[in-house]
Amino acid sequence: MGATTSTDLGFSTESTESGVGYRIPADHPGVTDLFAVLAYGEISAFYRLAEEAQLSPNLHGKVAVAKMAAAELAHFETLERALQDRGADVYGAMAPFVRPLDEYHTSTNPSTWLESMVKFYVGDGIAADFYSVLADSLAPEVGTVVRDVLAETSHSEFVIEQVRRTVAVNRSARDRLTLWGRRLLGEAITQAQYVMAQRDNLTELVLTATGDLNGVAKLFDHMQDSHGERMRVLGLG
Amino acid sequence: MGATTSTDLGFSTESTESGVGYRIPADHPGVTDLFAVLAYGEISAFYRLAEEAQLSPNLHGKVAVAKMAAAELAHFETLERALQDRGADVYGAMAPFVRPLDEYHTSTNPSTWLESMVKFYVGDGIAADFYSVLADSLAPEVGTVVRDVLAETSHSEFVIEQVRRTVAVNRSARDRLTLWGRRLLGEAITQAQYVMAQRDNLTELVLTATGDLNGVAKLFDHMQDSHGERMRVLGLG
Repeated sequence: MGATTSTDLGFSTESTESGVGYRIPADHPGVTDLFAVLAYGEISAFYRLAEEAQLSPNLHGKVAVAKMAAAELAHFETLERALQDRGADVYGAMAPFVRPLDEYHTSTNPSTWLESMVKFYVGDGIAADFYSVLADSLAPEVGTVVRDVLAETSHSEFVIEQVRRTVAVNRSARDRLTLWGRRLLGEAITQAQYVMAQRDNLTELVLTATGDLNGVAKLFDHMQDSHGERMRVLGLG
Repeated sequence: MGATTSTDLGFSTESTESGVGYRIPADHPGVTDLFAVLAYGEISAFYRLAEEAQLSPNLHGKVAVAKMAAAELAHFETLERALQDRGADVYGAMAPFVRPLDEYHTSTNPSTWLESMVKFYVGDGIAADFYSVLADSLAPEVGTVVRDVLAETSHSEFVIEQVRRTVAVNRSARDRLTLWGRRLLGEAITQAQYVMAQRDNLTELVLTATGDLNGVAKLFDHMQDSHGERMRVLGLG
């Protein structure tokens, strides 16, 4: 163990001699839960995107969304392999997370194509904020898996361009989508807390990653700030 | 030009000195139509699979179907690049084929998970029979694209296993799925003829590939025979 360093959020981590600092070893049982919740998140995003593509006004939009959905599935496959490598039962491990993630999607069912696009961009971002803080505390071989599946894809550009173009000329669309964005954040935080509490091992992992309950609160503040930045990128809020 | 050889179906082809025989040059305008109908076929299969996955009794089935859908999308991307390489407008080129392919899917809307699986396996096979005969007559650089996107994937094994297991113990399911398979063949041939007639360039390409109208009839006979074999593989018919 070497010097204590800080993450972007100011959470302290132990540095090893190789210069890589982490608090959570690869064999921590919460890692299986973390991979599993991410895996079910990808499957559920795949099917939500496929369903919401019905709202697309044209074939261009449908093709763009199909590509996003396929990217989610590729991430699922990475996690499936990672779970198998740990000797986990992929479906059994995902089971506890089906309900909270399905409930997030049900409670944020978009009614327009633009709402669907904002949900995709903003929802992905909120999840990435949450999980990347955890990744920073994980042993490198497992942290890499988490970072790989959170990597932003070029598909976001499609969303940004569609939303910005509309809200620049449509004030009422801008107001509605701003409220929609706030609702997405609220629901995501509710479900993130529920997910975290779902499994003792996962709760323990999150507490270790953030330090303590104050650290968890700091993480949620950070998610709120980043959310605000993303909304501004979309021309909202 | 060298000796005249025969394809599996007995259609004669010209052999070039390199030993590769083909009748349809890469710059035949029907090739763009052929790529375009295949491309829209992949997109439409992607969304149908995603929708039909709702019928899956469990998460295993949903994951398997999501993987099949992603494989269709990878094929779309191959065709999209091939169309762009030809300087074609991808969306304009696909437009004439949207209606016949959508109608095929509407007229063969599965009402159970097993019907959906049989449709996937059997429909894919019928399409592969039709297009692979065309591929045999194409210049190698374009024939390769067609063959790549028709390549059978390991996903079929999932379908065969699910269907065989059920029909082995359930006589009435076997009878219903046998009728369903016949209906799929009928609708597919109807729509294949409609697609072929949709664009003069494509009609011309199919006639060149098969020789003449008799050759087209022979192709449809061949599709019927192969369909029978596939049904037997599923334990049906």
